[in-house]
Amino acid sequence: MPPIPSAGTSRRFIKDFEPSDYISGVFCISNTQLGRTKNGKPFLKAIIRDKTGEMPGRMWSIEPDVFRRLPAEGFVEVEGETQAYQGELQLIIHRIEPVEPTPQQLVELLPVSARDPEEMFAELRGVLGTIAHPGLKALAQIYLDDAPLMDAFKRCPAAKSMHHAYLGGLLEHTLTLLHLADRVCPLYPKINRDIVLMGLFLHDLGKTRELIYDRAFSYTDRGELLGHLVDGAIMLHDRAQQVMRATGQRLPRHAVLVLQHIIISHHDKPEFGAAKPPMTPEAIFVALLDNLDAKTFIALAAARPDRDTPIDFGGNFTERQWALDTKLFRPDPLAE
Amino acid sequence: MPPIPSAGTSRRFIKDFEPSDYISGVFCISNTQLGRTKNGKPFLKAIIRDKTGEMPGRMWSIEPDVFRRLPAEGFVEVEGETQAYQGELQLIIHRIEPVEPTPQQLVELLPVSARDPEEMFAELRGVLGTIAHPGLKALAQIYLDDAPLMDAFKRCPAAKSMHHAYLGGLLEHTLTLLHLADRVCPLYPKINRDIVLMGLFLHDLGKTRELIYDRAFSYTDRGELLGHLVDGAIMLHDRAQQVMRATGQRLPRHAVLVLQHIIISHHDKPEFGAAKPPMTPEAIFVALLDNLDAKTFIALAAARPDRDTPIDFGGNFTERQWALDTKLFRPDPLAE
Amino acid sequence: MPPIPSAGTSRRFIKDFEPSDYISGVFCISNTQLGRTKNGKPFLKAIIRDKTGEMPGRMWSIEPDVFRRLPAEGFVEVEGETQAYQGELQLIIHRIEPVEPTPQQLVELLPVSARDPEEMFAELRGVLGTIAHPGLKALAQIYLDDAPLMDAFKRCPAAKSMHHAYLGGLLEHTLTLLHLADRVCPLYPKINRDIVLMGLFLHDLGKTRELIYDRAFSYTDRGELLGHLVDGAIMLHDRAQQVMRATGQRLPRHAVLVLQHIIISHHDKPEFGAAKPPMTPEAIFVALLDNLDAKTFIALAAARPDRDTPIDFGGNFTERQWALDTKLFRPDPLAE
Amino acid sequence: MPPIPSAGTSRRFIKDFEPSDYISGVFCISNTQLGRTKNGKPFLKAIIRDKTGEMPGRMWSIEPDVFRRLPAEGFVEVEGETQAYQGELQLIIHRIEPVEPTPQQLVELLPVSARDPEEMFAELRGVLGTIAHPGLKALAQIYLDDAPLMDAFKRCPAAKSMHHAYLGGLLEHTLTLLHLADRVCPLYPKINRDIVLMGLFLHDLGKTRELIYDRAFSYTDRGELLGHLVDGAIMLHDRAQQVMRATGQRLPRHAVLVLQHIIISHHDKPEFGAAKPPMTPEAIFVALLDNLDAKTFIALAAARPDRDTPIDFGGNFTERQWALDTKLFRPDPLAE
Amino acid sequence: MPPIPSAGTSRRFIKDFEPSDYISGVFCISNTQLGRTKNGKPFLKAIIRDKTGEMPGRMWSIEPDVFRRLPAEGFVEVEGETQAYQGELQLIIHRIEPVEPTPQQLVELLPVSARDPEEMFAELRGVLGTIAHPGLKALAQIYLDDAPLMDAFKRCPAAKSMHHAYLGGLLEHTLTLLHLADRVCPLYPKINRDIVLMGLFLHDLGKTRELIYDRAFSYTDRGELLGHLVDGAIMLHDRAQQVMRATGQRLPRHAVLVLQHIIISHHDKPEFGAAKPPMTPEAIFVALLDNLDAKTFIALAAARPDRDTPIDFGGNFTERQWALDTKLFRPDPLAE
Amino acid sequence: MPPIPSAGTSRRFIKDFEPSDYISGVFCISNTQLGRTKNGKPFLKAIIRDKTGEMPGRMWSIEPDVFRRLPAEGFVEVEGETQAYQGELQLIIHRIEPVEPTPQQLVELLPVSARDPEEMFAELRGVLGTIAHPGLKALAQIYLDDAPLMDAFKRCPAAKSMHHAYLGGLLEHTLTLLHLADRVCPLYPKINRDIVLMGLFLHDLGKTRELIYDRAFSYTDRGELLGHLVDGAIMLHDRAQQVMRATGQRLPRHAVLVLQHIIISHHDKPEFGAAKPPMTPEAIFVALLDNLDAKTFIALAAARPDRDTPIDFGGNFTERQWALDTKLFRPDPLAE
Repeated sequence: MPPIPSAGTSRRFIKDFEPSDYISGVFCISNTQLGRTKNGKPFLKAIIRDKTGEMPGRMWSIEPDVFRRLPAEGFVEVEGETQAYQGELQLIIHRIEPVEPTPQQLVELLPVSARDPEEMFAELRGVLGTIAHPGLKALAQIYLDDAPLMDAFKRCPAAKSMHHAYLGGLLEHTLTLLHLADRVCPLYPKINRDIVLMGLFLHDLGKTRELIYDRAFSYTDRGELLGHLVDGAIMLHDRAQQVMRATGQRLPRHAVLVLQHIIISHHDKPEFGAAKPPMTPEAIFVALLDNLDAKTFIALAAARPDRDTPIDFGGNFTERQWALDTKLFRPDPLAE
Repeated sequence: MPPIPSAGTSRRFIKDFEPSDYISGVFCISNTQLGRTKNGKPFLKAIIRDKTGEMPGRMWSIEPDVFRRLPAEGFVEVEGETQAYQGELQLIIHRIEPVEPTPQQLVELLPVSARDPEEMFAELRGVLGTIAHPGLKALAQIYLDDAPLMDAFKRCPAAKSMHHAYLGGLLEHTLTLLHLADRVCPLYPKINRDIVLMGLFLHDLGKTRELIYDRAFSYTDRGELLGHLVDGAIMLHDRAQQVMRATGQRLPRHAVLVLQHIIISHHDKPEFGAAKPPMTPEAIFVALLDNLDAKTFIALAAARPDRDTPIDFGGNFTERQWALDTKLFRPDPLAE
Repeated sequence: MPPIPSAGTSRRFIKDFEPSDYISGVFCISNTQLGRTKNGKPFLKAIIRDKTGEMPGRMWSIEPDVFRRLPAEGFVEVEGETQAYQGELQLIIHRIEPVEPTPQQLVELLPVSARDPEEMFAELRGVLGTIAHPGLKALAQIYLDDAPLMDAFKRCPAAKSMHHAYLGGLLEHTLTLLHLADRVCPLYPKINRDIVLMGLFLHDLGKTRELIYDRAFSYTDRGELLGHLVDGAIMLHDRAQQVMRATGQRLPRHAVLVLQHIIISHHDKPEFGAAKPPMTPEAIFVALLDNLDAKTFIALAAARPDRDTPIDFGGNFTERQWALDTKLFRPDPLAE
Repeated sequence: MPPIPSAGTSRRFIKDFEPSDYISGVFCISNTQLGRTKNGKPFLKAIIRDKTGEMPGRMWSIEPDVFRRLPAEGFVEVEGETQAYQGELQLIIHRIEPVEPTPQQLVELLPVSARDPEEMFAELRGVLGTIAHPGLKALAQIYLDDAPLMDAFKRCPAAKSMHHAYLGGLLEHTLTLLHLADRVCPLYPKINRDIVLMGLFLHDLGKTRELIYDRAFSYTDRGELLGHLVDGAIMLHDRAQQVMRATGQRLPRHAVLVLQHIIISHHDKPEFGAAKPPMTPEAIFVALLDNLDAKTFIALAAARPDRDTPIDFGGNFTERQWALDTKLFRPDPLAE
Repeated sequence: MPPIPSAGTSRRFIKDFEPSDYISGVFCISNTQLGRTKNGKPFLKAIIRDKTGEMPGRMWSIEPDVFRRLPAEGFVEVEGETQAYQGELQLIIHRIEPVEPTPQQLVELLPVSARDPEEMFAELRGVLGTIAHPGLKALAQIYLDDAPLMDAFKRCPAAKSMHHAYLGGLLEHTLTLLHLADRVCPLYPKINRDIVLMGLFLHDLGKTRELIYDRAFSYTDRGELLGHLVDGAIMLHDRAQQVMRATGQRLPRHAVLVLQHIIISHHDKPEFGAAKPPMTPEAIFVALLDNLDAKTFIALAAARPDRDTPIDFGGNFTERQWALDTKLFRPDPLAE
Repeated sequence: MPPIPSAGTSRRFIKDFEPSDYISGVFCISNTQLGRTKNGKPFLKAIIRDKTGEMPGRMWSIEPDVFRRLPAEGFVEVEGETQAYQGELQLIIHRIEPVEPTPQQLVELLPVSARDPEEMFAELRGVLGTIAHPGLKALAQIYLDDAPLMDAFKRCPAAKSMHHAYLGGLLEHTLTLLHLADRVCPLYPKINRDIVLMGLFLHDLGKTRELIYDRAFSYTDRGELLGHLVDGAIMLHDRAQQVMRATGQRLPRHAVLVLQHIIISHHDKPEFGAAKPPMTPEAIFVALLDNLDAKTFIALAAARPDRDTPIDFGGNFTERQWALDTKLFRPDPLAE
């Protein structure tokens, strides 16, 4: 049975739930599992999520048929009530059905960049418009004209977690990198600016095939088995042939190879996923800028988050940040 | 000025050179460099090689124009004489010209497998002919029908050095792996034999683009910057589309992805060049068989070489073998 | 007080338990500990196991004397009833006594190879019978004639967990390796087949002293402090002297040393427990075959288990496999 | 006996030496050693250097007294003649004396930044002048007013080798970093710009005590045993006390600690010499910028050097660059 | 509102608590957090500790104002009663107030060395009194005369956890090291005994600024961001200047540098926190002695603790000891 | 043909050779190889050594029969003359024969401990005599009564190079360790002194089978393939059985296992050759003491050698010491 489209709901967000609330609406579901209840019957255990937070969900009595229709990761329409348990809220589910969310609902369910994607995309076109070499310009245009890919690019997060892990995050991260390059390239006149801009534009585009982001963020099978580095190189392989077919224009002899090299090397070291170490000045530069933006984002998000935690228990240091391999000192360095 | 075709020579091989021999013939040249001679004039330093060995070459007076025509790695016609220097022979060159070797000369210059390539190729077709799945069979045929690629496959070495580093070595190594799989697969009935055979056939085919082997073995720019793993995945990307176009036959849903994954993961670990760790039973199996053949080859070649060194100085142990991270014990384990 | 022999029970297996069942029978016990109950009195916490599964056991009121007689790892006769708690079943114990299980009971308690040990042992004798060198043949016979050792060899698991972790697993793993060698050796004529077969036969025999397998699998003190590599070398030291005493036959000069080297090096690298890296072609070959069988076993057991999990929650990938340092892709690679 | 001041010489530079030239002048000497000549008498072996290059020097007969006066690293007045030996020039020394070079001679002997130090220093004062916090401004002024330290800062290289390894290199590297921060900080509004600028200014100042740069570049004993990270923290410890004494102004509570932390953590990881990992957003940012400039400098210097090597032997790739752990692809990525 | 001094209590220690005890007294508190209770109201979660042990504390209804006054790590006066929960005791708190413990109370709250600090300090003065060099003797005296520092030295633990993690532990560890050096130095006549004794005395003194030990042991911000190695070097920098000012006596040329080097290198390797590897015989010797005492302490404390656990469940091996990277065999090696 | 005994020679030592000396005497030879001379004929290349030093030896014309009789490592009677070549002395050999050195000659050829072996052995017996447990005492006696083993123990070096690499070095190192334990054990009353003394006595005894020391120091095949750790455990396995047979005395239950564990774990970490990590307090203590003596020996030998190098070129630091992974600061730390 196919999932039914759900009616619009005037949403209450998870962050606002109180104990003993009656809840009805569409949510992300993930970690969908069957436990055994106290009387040995199966019960449903899952994580329920919207863009503002997540909570455990339990349905103490569930028909096998209902369970089998539920997605491991996906969307559900839920009725139930909140209950406090061991100091945490959980959602006791009375009714659950798979659902196809409306676009409006998706906006309420998935975390999203604070900036408008179209505005960011226009900025990105602007920076790419400053590429001087006509062949590279034509190649950029092939990508920019690929509407399905650009739509994906505008929505895709930059990562499953870690940094820019929200809808629009990939575009936001790419745009910041282009601005960075635009400001920093003049300090290194021997760096080829055109290659750097194209390399930054393309370096993470394979993520559009690597990540699932129309429900709880996760990896596609393709993402697990190939990865966005190899896939980005394959995507460029196809489009480089298109440039010649579509525009009659030949790319410089080394250009495609050098850009594919940037894509497959931009994680810098094999242990971080690079298929080759960066071996051209531009590949090294791209990997350094990518690292600069990612680590600065993570450090600031952890030590200086946007919302204040009203009462702060952790003292002056955050939890260990996995990606930085350290905890962070929180106080304003110039506080009196 | 293009290099001139050289006349046939009745070759004396380097392993047979004696001091004060007059030498005239075609050789591989590599490490072509300009030193400064005792009177401050440039002199030519290079390595001279044929299939039997190598030696230093020196030309004490060389015109800049002559030098500039010489390849960094390639072939030259040489006249000169051998000279003993510090207990080693070197070749004092009187005349040197770049040359396009005849096929017969190439045979004399590059090390080559002891087995006939056409015979090995027929054996390989035989094993691949036992693939059961029609889609994979069609895919194999696309490769086997690609005459330029198969010609390269028959001649390409398996590596620049290390193991099977001779013309025909890639085919010989691949064929041994197919025989191995043919014998071992029946012990593991859950392993998908078709995928293993295809994976082994394709795993190193990117080496035909990675290696230079029509002169001294080395890497292409493409080999350095992309590598044969990523390139093998791109080659399969193109040919998988061809299967559908050419035969109208659809490959199973996961087949291309799983084979690309085998190709990009067969070096097992990122630090050995794998873009992903092997994540399917067949990918793990292919990586294990590849490792088994490569290490066994290296161990036997080092500890039990075909030609006896007439007087053996090193005692019971070989030099440290880089690829095995150890030296090897030479004596026959059952010698009385 | 010595444990009493228990009467035979018509067994219900743990995988078939339902909530509120009355249970009476012999089980493995492990992790035997004393907790403090809600009223501050000690209560018994332990793991209860048979060959089909395990579950937590609790006895809310236990006399210190009863507790002290219980083994940390061993066998107990138990009466009690099952109870569902937080969606899991646990066994509430009413009566517990240490017990000496009958052979029939042991068969019901410990996981066991699907193959008949005597049949596997006969196959193993067959392969070892093809050893050509009379001295090695005599050495193999010394081991095969050691009835207590061979009895242990037939029952011992190949590992505490990881691969072939069931009764008869060591014999099954060794036999697969001998079959592998039998098929693969002809492809490498320079490999000494006799040494490879003897090396594979002996490589893990020290496990009979390293592992505890007459109750929950674990390590002996000797296994922890010496390990099966060093112990296997000591066992061979004794038996090699026996060959000369018993048969008057001298082993070849290097044979014992080379076999001891295979035993202490077969884990390949120091960080995996090898006392020396493999330094002979046969030692390298044995380590490679051992690795091939172990990793293939683990990959297939994880990705393609014998029993289907009726409802599969984990998506297309398994949990991370510790021994392979990766998760595994489950789908049939040729499924449409 | 103290070294005597040498008279001015109209210098010929080492890069211009021809065989059989008569040479007289002041040079750097390093690696000063005594070999034994063919007749068993000691002879002098050393490296002779000026800002344009280096060559081996030999003096076949040397009085012990003369030898003992020579510095292991330092300056000498030399008379001798060049001689070609094994295709290299060496300097056969007839007379050698330790010497105190004049400032003019030092300019000819040590490699030096292409930019004028005073001009760079003025730029640096300009950027530091934009620091907003009065306490930090006062601290910067304490450093800027320390004439001997600033003189050292203007002359010190940024490293013994690797990057900016020339007189004025430390200032040039620091200035580039300040410009980088000036351009990049606006993209990260949560980063404290004042702390970043101060951190960059101070991060390598300990190098003025770590390096020897008034003769062949090397490390001081203090540099080897303490290092510029710990020493930079000690220097700041002293000057922070001075701020309060000299200006009556208190620095913010955490400011000195946070700046000392930037200094001792800016090498990012313990294995690169960091005494702590960077644990504040600004410490992370400083380490990332430092890395960006150093690696970009090295990559460009290796792949695209200022002076063309007239005939290029190495093919399309440079030698392995130790600091980047790779070789580099040389061709212009957009060359046709 | 400042915490109020608490009245003396006739203490019952945590190790003696029984279920349903009424408790009133002063305790260490740590991990102070706010959970949400079943009715959605905040409740207090914390760890309650005295010198004999620790337990969870809960206060089901707490005013925000009360909560805000509580320290994250510190001391509180508590009234409540013990309750058994899941086999563990927890403290249900009725009333809680921050408190300034009296010296007598502190003695009851924090774990403490079994030896008298004044007696140990007298012994330490005795060993330091055998330093022969007058300059070093004067330097030692500067430290010994610094009453606040020596008071801290007498109370400070040697570590937050791991070894000698109790009040007086730093002094006890340092004293053992001095006794060790006193006994071992005569076996190595070339070792400079004075430097070794001073190095051992100073090597961990920075811990007095690194650790918080007037409540639950933890790190200061200064300890996290600078560490006791760098801080110990800064402390010596100040005191070395004092020697000259106070006594007019010059220290030997290398003495301060060599001692600072011992301090910053005594963790032996960068990955253990050393800012430099030990590079003098005395620095190596100090690091080896420090390692000898720390590891021996940890091994004996784990395998042969002072108090017998009455019933021992873990078998013959302890848990894995993080600092030794292994578990330990407990039995007396000579037990029959 | 067996080597002939050589007549006594009034020896001139290598350190006293001058150019153009006529030399006749017995030397160690190693690295015995055949080069090709300028006229293509084989010539002999080897290293010639006595206890004072080593030098290259060349014999420009050598009969194959003579060459074949020469040992790869061994002793030769040589006639020839010294010649200066490239600032080094080499020995031009006129006549060379293998020779069996007299005991007196061996003393002149191999480096030797400064202490008398019998005196050291008596001291060692003294310390072992303080072992309290009668079983361990009997075990020690079994070893001490094994005259061939004790003779080897008195002569064996402690290592091929690195530390105590001279005849008698193993005994000297073992004795120092026993003295260390004797002084340090009282500081750790929970350490079992008997086990520590026995463990130290036995820990390196396998070196008597691992090392060749009756000519140039090197490893036996057994040493390479088994190593002194495993071999020491096997030696103890045999002797423990002897204790029971010879003295009727039973060793404590765990004693042999615990001592074998000390032997196979005393290199501390797998990457340094330990077959298991040390897992008992005594095993950890033995490994720590062994490390303390070895590293202190190496540091002092490098930084403060017995003989002054008359003119010191290396500045204040030694070469990098491989075993310490650092160079060393040479100056006396208290020099004015």
